[in-house]
Amino acid sequence: MKLVVLGTLAFDSIQTPFGRVENVLGGSATYFSLAARNFSEVGVISVVGSDFHEEHLKFLEKRSIDLKGVEKTKGKTFRWQGYYEYDMDQAHTLKTELNVLESFKPKIPREYRKCDYLFLANTDPGIQMETLDKIKPKYSFCDTMNFWIEHKREELTELLKNVDGVFINEGEAREYCKTPNLIAAGRKLLKLGLKKVVIKKGESGAIFMSDKEFFAAPAYPLEVVKDPTGAGDSFAGGTIGHLAKHGKFTDEWIKKSMVCGSVISSYVVEDFGIESYRKLKHEDIEKRYNTFKKIVAFDHKY
Amino acid sequence: MKLVVLGTLAFDSIQTPFGRVENVLGGSATYFSLAARNFSEVGVISVVGSDFHEEHLKFLEKRSIDLKGVEKTKGKTFRWQGYYEYDMDQAHTLKTELNVLESFKPKIPREYRKCDYLFLANTDPGIQMETLDKIKPKYSFCDTMNFWIEHKREELTELLKNVDGVFINEGEAREYCKTPNLIAAGRKLLKLGLKKVVIKKGESGAIFMSDKEFFAAPAYPLEVVKDPTGAGDSFAGGTIGHLAKHGKFTDEWIKKSMVCGSVISSYVVEDFGIESYRKLKHEDIEKRYNTFKKIVAFDHKY
Repeated sequence: MKLVVLGTLAFDSIQTPFGRVENVLGGSATYFSLAARNFSEVGVISVVGSDFHEEHLKFLEKRSIDLKGVEKTKGKTFRWQGYYEYDMDQAHTLKTELNVLESFKPKIPREYRKCDYLFLANTDPGIQMETLDKIKPKYSFCDTMNFWIEHKREELTELLKNVDGVFINEGEAREYCKTPNLIAAGRKLLKLGLKKVVIKKGESGAIFMSDKEFFAAPAYPLEVVKDPTGAGDSFAGGTIGHLAKHGKFTDEWIKKSMVCGSVISSYVVEDFGIESYRKLKHEDIEKRYNTFKKIVAFDHKY
Repeated sequence: MKLVVLGTLAFDSIQTPFGRVENVLGGSATYFSLAARNFSEVGVISVVGSDFHEEHLKFLEKRSIDLKGVEKTKGKTFRWQGYYEYDMDQAHTLKTELNVLESFKPKIPREYRKCDYLFLANTDPGIQMETLDKIKPKYSFCDTMNFWIEHKREELTELLKNVDGVFINEGEAREYCKTPNLIAAGRKLLKLGLKKVVIKKGESGAIFMSDKEFFAAPAYPLEVVKDPTGAGDSFAGGTIGHLAKHGKFTDEWIKKSMVCGSVISSYVVEDFGIESYRKLKHEDIEKRYNTFKKIVAFDHKY
């Protein structure tokens, strides 16, 4: 397998100023794989309960997403309920029901081992580390969240020392690195041994830092953002999917792959949940990729 | 005169986590003109009190800044005292002493009339409008702040309908346009008749919108920001100074001029007050301009 993601398949209930949806397909592995499959084969390690809809699994499988690593178990599927205020800046969680996630022990199909790329979506850093150890991919990335920074800092640090790259949002980068300056935070993360640091900045895009490079990708300019849910995982999925397709782990490739990730997440936030993925085509991705070139272009003669 | 700025000459007292300075040379016209003079001749319309130091005027004049429009009057010079928290995100004002500004009626030297470019730095929109009417420049830009949005909204709207462009920070753009979405805010400003809208985003750079174009300029990545005072006016000064030098008012020129503005403000925030301007050279500007090209560059093949 070229690319594997450890993450959640979930039922999301979301309210934003533009509407609400209940118990729709969501979860980090869902968004990640729906983005990544535009470029690469992708396998999912996750768990769902007996209430998970067969049609959701079919929806993913129809899009060439490999679900051999998805365990079906007794109990209820992970559920998240949240809302966004008018500024869409931040998800406010109303309810998290871990359900089958509570006792989740990732089962890893043989063909996922030694994959090229592995993405460890936000979860307990202990589970992320265990999965990394078992899969031994060529290249690995992880995400995390404030809860783990605050409650499992040591395990998270151990993980960050063992993966090749991180996707982290700006607030979490500041919190983990204990500095308000993002560039200083990026340097601190690199010092842990990380080779590629990607800091997500929401409507201000994302920055990338390695030992040698700094890259800033703006967000695609959107007048209407209906639902930001899944934007970060879609961005990671588009980026790593594009990397996996070409098999390159260089700074140059990460930059253009990040633009692919930005493009995909720009479509995702234009509709609720995963709705945009139902109609997203290769031409759409190419179209906004080309717009991105123009957005950052300026005459090189000073 | 190619370029004229209406703004303040001030004594600033600033505290940041990196130190403090008291009663140093500051003010919007100071920062703007020190940035602009790297590219263009620039004249200042302002007022100072009898306590203003001769050495400050000499400092500016030595840098080819024309001070014929600076009125010296009885009373004390405008003073601002403020501090920045650890995150450097926002200036917190401790004290504003308007002093000679209170009864300021701009006097406009004959040679400033019909200048090519005029920048109306943040002040009472009535005074900005009056100055615009008297000068009748080829191209005009203004800045503003939350106080005028809240207390003189109608006068500000009148001004925005009469200038060619605006430099506004993201919080003020959101507040004036009554929308959290910056792209929507930009569109609303364009609908007033503005031809060029520049929204400043601090450490996330700036965006530019016209009827036809969208451009995103990141901020230069800095690990240490000592004092953000004057960054916005320096950015406007670098941008409009570069435009004035070349006499172009096209979208293409504004983009590269914005990069020049970003470069200059990146130097300014690395030291307190106007200290960086004492040593800033053309080679420095060119160096970071070239770095900017790399920061946003990605392979154009999708």
